[in-house]
Amino acid sequence: MNQSNMIWPDKVTICEVGLRDGLQNEKIILSVEEKLELLDMVVASGIKVIEVGSFVHPKAIPQMADTEKVVQRMKRVDGVEYRALVPNLKGLERAHAAGLTKAKLTVSVSESHCINNFNQTPLEMMEGFIPCVEYAAKHNIKVSGALSSAWGCAFEGKIPVQQIEKIVREYLKLGITVLSLSDATGMGNPRQVYEIGKYMVETFPQIKWVLHFHNTRDMALSNILAGIQAGITTFDGAFGGLGGCPYIPGASGNIATEDVVHMLHEMGIDTGVDSLKAIATARTAQQMVDHQAESHVLKAGRCEDLTNERVRHQNNKS
Amino acid sequence: MNQSNMIWPDKVTICEVGLRDGLQNEKIILSVEEKLELLDMVVASGIKVIEVGSFVHPKAIPQMADTEKVVQRMKRVDGVEYRALVPNLKGLERAHAAGLTKAKLTVSVSESHCINNFNQTPLEMMEGFIPCVEYAAKHNIKVSGALSSAWGCAFEGKIPVQQIEKIVREYLKLGITVLSLSDATGMGNPRQVYEIGKYMVETFPQIKWVLHFHNTRDMALSNILAGIQAGITTFDGAFGGLGGCPYIPGASGNIATEDVVHMLHEMGIDTGVDSLKAIATARTAQQMVDHQAESHVLKAGRCEDLTNERVRHQNNKS
Repeated sequence: MNQSNMIWPDKVTICEVGLRDGLQNEKIILSVEEKLELLDMVVASGIKVIEVGSFVHPKAIPQMADTEKVVQRMKRVDGVEYRALVPNLKGLERAHAAGLTKAKLTVSVSESHCINNFNQTPLEMMEGFIPCVEYAAKHNIKVSGALSSAWGCAFEGKIPVQQIEKIVREYLKLGITVLSLSDATGMGNPRQVYEIGKYMVETFPQIKWVLHFHNTRDMALSNILAGIQAGITTFDGAFGGLGGCPYIPGASGNIATEDVVHMLHEMGIDTGVDSLKAIATARTAQQMVDHQAESHVLKAGRCEDLTNERVRHQNNKS
Repeated sequence: MNQSNMIWPDKVTICEVGLRDGLQNEKIILSVEEKLELLDMVVASGIKVIEVGSFVHPKAIPQMADTEKVVQRMKRVDGVEYRALVPNLKGLERAHAAGLTKAKLTVSVSESHCINNFNQTPLEMMEGFIPCVEYAAKHNIKVSGALSSAWGCAFEGKIPVQQIEKIVREYLKLGITVLSLSDATGMGNPRQVYEIGKYMVETFPQIKWVLHFHNTRDMALSNILAGIQAGITTFDGAFGGLGGCPYIPGASGNIATEDVVHMLHEMGIDTGVDSLKAIATARTAQQMVDHQAESHVLKAGRCEDLTNERVRHQNNKS
């Protein structure tokens, strides 16, 4: 009989990236007040790792132009990690000036993607990270790294594991040991996630791995399940599943935080997140961006609510 | 290091239930011609097991009232299994008269669900299956069985494995050895599917198991992945992900056949289905029911198409 031995960790960590990756493609630019309201709700739901924005050039992504103000005005709750995406030293300096102590660098593992978008190879881009880590060390800023297009690239298709590993080793040379493997185009599949994830966990036990999936082709929760089987227990999500790919109109965005939390709780895995509060955050975000969010439990409710409601309904009838 | 050993079968079988479970809650009643057009497309896509309708009372589900005509008029391709859902002997007689040689019985494993809907316990309902299997044996009709609410019930919540096992043993007493575990409310989660699936596969090696999931809370593909890990390789799907739950307006329906096929192909698992033709079926069905289908690859396209398109676009630019 051909069966596997699936594993179930006691606890999984969710990083909320809705304020950055969720919002950055939205047409309606949210006010600082709205972003702070969402941030408060995220914190209140129990999430401990939050990406609050990005310090890219203000003209590049208008939705992120006010990240300074968000960071300056946000309440800081003890035990919560607030970080921002920074593309380069300039962005890191702005993040530091605004008072952030955590930052995430990012590079695409796809040569074509890098050259096409930035006119640099991934390794050339990463040379620019050297002054960043020096600056971060001097100012006591913790730095993590992202490998975008790790699960597939619209130019190159599947990325060979050697190509990912090369970038991982460069990050290690920089002393960065928290790394996320990112799938903005929703091309990753669970077999690939399991096989590459397992290889990475085995090869680099010193690295804390984070997986970032979009639900473009409905594979994100399966990819998270496969990531868990590979030994990874930290995953990104975005409230309401916001953040579609600009190339694919109507396609799903990031995996919805509340859908991840709901599935994990149904599986008996603790996330430390209040799922009803996560759903409430998604509902508020949906109102702010003014379109239907790509979230399942926001529409359908949690399993337990379905049962409770029916039982209540039955009791009322009898 | 905590890692599992996931398994990947060479081949998975997809059963298309769109013509029955996909359509039965749709407001627009399709014509026999439209259903035959969809059926032809399903067959052309390479699917070999097709549920063409159900022989319930014509007034119970108006969309299924013409199942006789669909069965009488459909082309029969060698090697394709055409079956219908039958609730009782009367339905089986109608299926036989229309010329079908395969039928599926169904019972809810939830006592409350059965009593509430049919005023009978599951075992009382199954007594009515005895004349069905006698009739089927006499007329050379192959019978399979479904256990609905196996993964959760709006009245009872999670169903204990013992309760499922009791119904399985009753089916075995009737000589029925092809059984599907069905989740119409989308309450199943992958840990549960793996644990109960594994137990069932180990306990009943003589049974051929089929899993039927709805994507209400986005867990269907994860459940299929977990089912594969439990040793199960046959899954239902419905074109376009049609078939929402009438209790939950706007919620996703059956898992979309084309999303299942796409994920499995990306994982290197053969389904015998042409994914582009499966997407074409979903697109046609979407037009016929006249609302947006809950299908991901219908909107976003396959991974390989994204790559091909971008590469083509690049080549045109240069």
